[in-house]
Amino acid sequence: MKMKEDWVEEDFRGHLKMKYKITERLYHKKTEFQTVEVVNTVGFGKMLLNDSLVMVTEKDEFVYHDMITHVPLFLHPNPKKVLIIGGGDGGTAREVLRHKNIERCVMVEIDGAVVDSCKEFIHQTSCALDDSRLELIIGDGVDYVDKCEEKFDVVLVDSTEPIGPATPLFGDKFYLDVAKVLVEDGIVVAQGESPFYNLEMQKKLTEIMSDKFKYVSPYNYSNLTYPGGAWSFIMGSKKYHPTKDLDHAKVGRSGMDFNYYNEDVHVGAFAVLNFVKKELGLNIKM
Amino acid sequence: MKMKEDWVEEDFRGHLKMKYKITERLYHKKTEFQTVEVVNTVGFGKMLLNDSLVMVTEKDEFVYHDMITHVPLFLHPNPKKVLIIGGGDGGTAREVLRHKNIERCVMVEIDGAVVDSCKEFIHQTSCALDDSRLELIIGDGVDYVDKCEEKFDVVLVDSTEPIGPATPLFGDKFYLDVAKVLVEDGIVVAQGESPFYNLEMQKKLTEIMSDKFKYVSPYNYSNLTYPGGAWSFIMGSKKYHPTKDLDHAKVGRSGMDFNYYNEDVHVGAFAVLNFVKKELGLNIKM
Repeated sequence: MKMKEDWVEEDFRGHLKMKYKITERLYHKKTEFQTVEVVNTVGFGKMLLNDSLVMVTEKDEFVYHDMITHVPLFLHPNPKKVLIIGGGDGGTAREVLRHKNIERCVMVEIDGAVVDSCKEFIHQTSCALDDSRLELIIGDGVDYVDKCEEKFDVVLVDSTEPIGPATPLFGDKFYLDVAKVLVEDGIVVAQGESPFYNLEMQKKLTEIMSDKFKYVSPYNYSNLTYPGGAWSFIMGSKKYHPTKDLDHAKVGRSGMDFNYYNEDVHVGAFAVLNFVKKELGLNIKM
Repeated sequence: MKMKEDWVEEDFRGHLKMKYKITERLYHKKTEFQTVEVVNTVGFGKMLLNDSLVMVTEKDEFVYHDMITHVPLFLHPNPKKVLIIGGGDGGTAREVLRHKNIERCVMVEIDGAVVDSCKEFIHQTSCALDDSRLELIIGDGVDYVDKCEEKFDVVLVDSTEPIGPATPLFGDKFYLDVAKVLVEDGIVVAQGESPFYNLEMQKKLTEIMSDKFKYVSPYNYSNLTYPGGAWSFIMGSKKYHPTKDLDHAKVGRSGMDFNYYNEDVHVGAFAVLNFVKKELGLNIKM
């Protein structure tokens, strides 16, 4: 007997659908924040979806996690303390904790179901969540930085789209607090959407950061499962120029090996697409 | 009465489907080479599909056409003659002919129906096909370079996937002929697929080019409608290093304005993703 085919579908603005063939539905929970799902796909391995938007797949998560983590962690000369806001799948923490100089990593994820589902079903990303250097807090990241009196070298805002629970993470007050919890040569990196589809948000976020950080720059990456071609992170850096202050030899000295990241990819990612440059008015040269 | 919804669907290896909502079916023809279709979409404007694979959309064609054209045409100090193999939609010719120094452009497209359908329905790409500097030949590009006794500064292989009519364009004999029709400081750029999905083909193409050109390098771009994240072109250059020999000021002097391309994007595109670097064994530094 032929099994009926099963698919998950990401609907983009009602006119584009991306459908992924699946073999199993592993997890489904409606939380107070969103619907969290884990499925097993034919083409991309295990997949996490929040509110039917693809968050993470085993096949391409290395792209996002390399780029949110290693760009700031190699740019900063000696990061010891990292704060992750969001990132419940664990992939960002995994990459942070690969850096031997990291002494403490705090991760504040709002939705415990994301952590639980990934711990149970997506070990590839959640494998470092029991590391002794990690403090995992299930709570509101906006609240956390508001009340936080600790300082960090790097803050990573590993958030979902600027809808639902992540909305305040794209606001001015949050970045005032982020600047406050960062040391004087600190760096923040935030999930920055697709310039093709969400340039207004990139503009808003770079404007919010621009009076709090010396350098504000989007940088790009491309994975397989986010509709919108080149996606971006937005970096705010209090002291270090995103490419000129990179010690290229540091990457080799680390002894670490990557699937996506290398020194050239670091520098090249800061090439701002011309339509983005015109809109954002950035005059940082790569 | 509510109209029934109509969609076109690109099926990727049976496990991923990209569906585009359409408002009109404008053109449909089964030729000896492929099925050629033009539709009007809700999200991407007019769209050309060959054998149900998205080739061109009005919304994002600038990415591909900027990157296949302006990277070699700004790298070469004074290109006057360009040969395009494929490119029936006309977008590559349009961008080539924007360069005032171009005296002659020959375009050899195998399938007249692609040209006809775009001339009728996609003026955005086909608008330059009547330029007096352009010679448009409906014929076999492989044959053309085999018999050609003319020399070109730049050859652009604007081909579909390495299946169907485009297969010989990914072969050794073709690149022997391309090297023959190029002047001694000539440059070839070829559509190079997605490294995520077709790294084997990139490996084959870079190997084929490597004994015919001094520099062989993939370079990346991302658009909205090709499944596979970062897509690549492969450049073979007889004399000029793809980034070090770029005269950055030439871009400004041209007075041309772009949506995607600029000098930083040119350089940054040659940052080879680490998994590609390992597989291709390229030792060119960006």
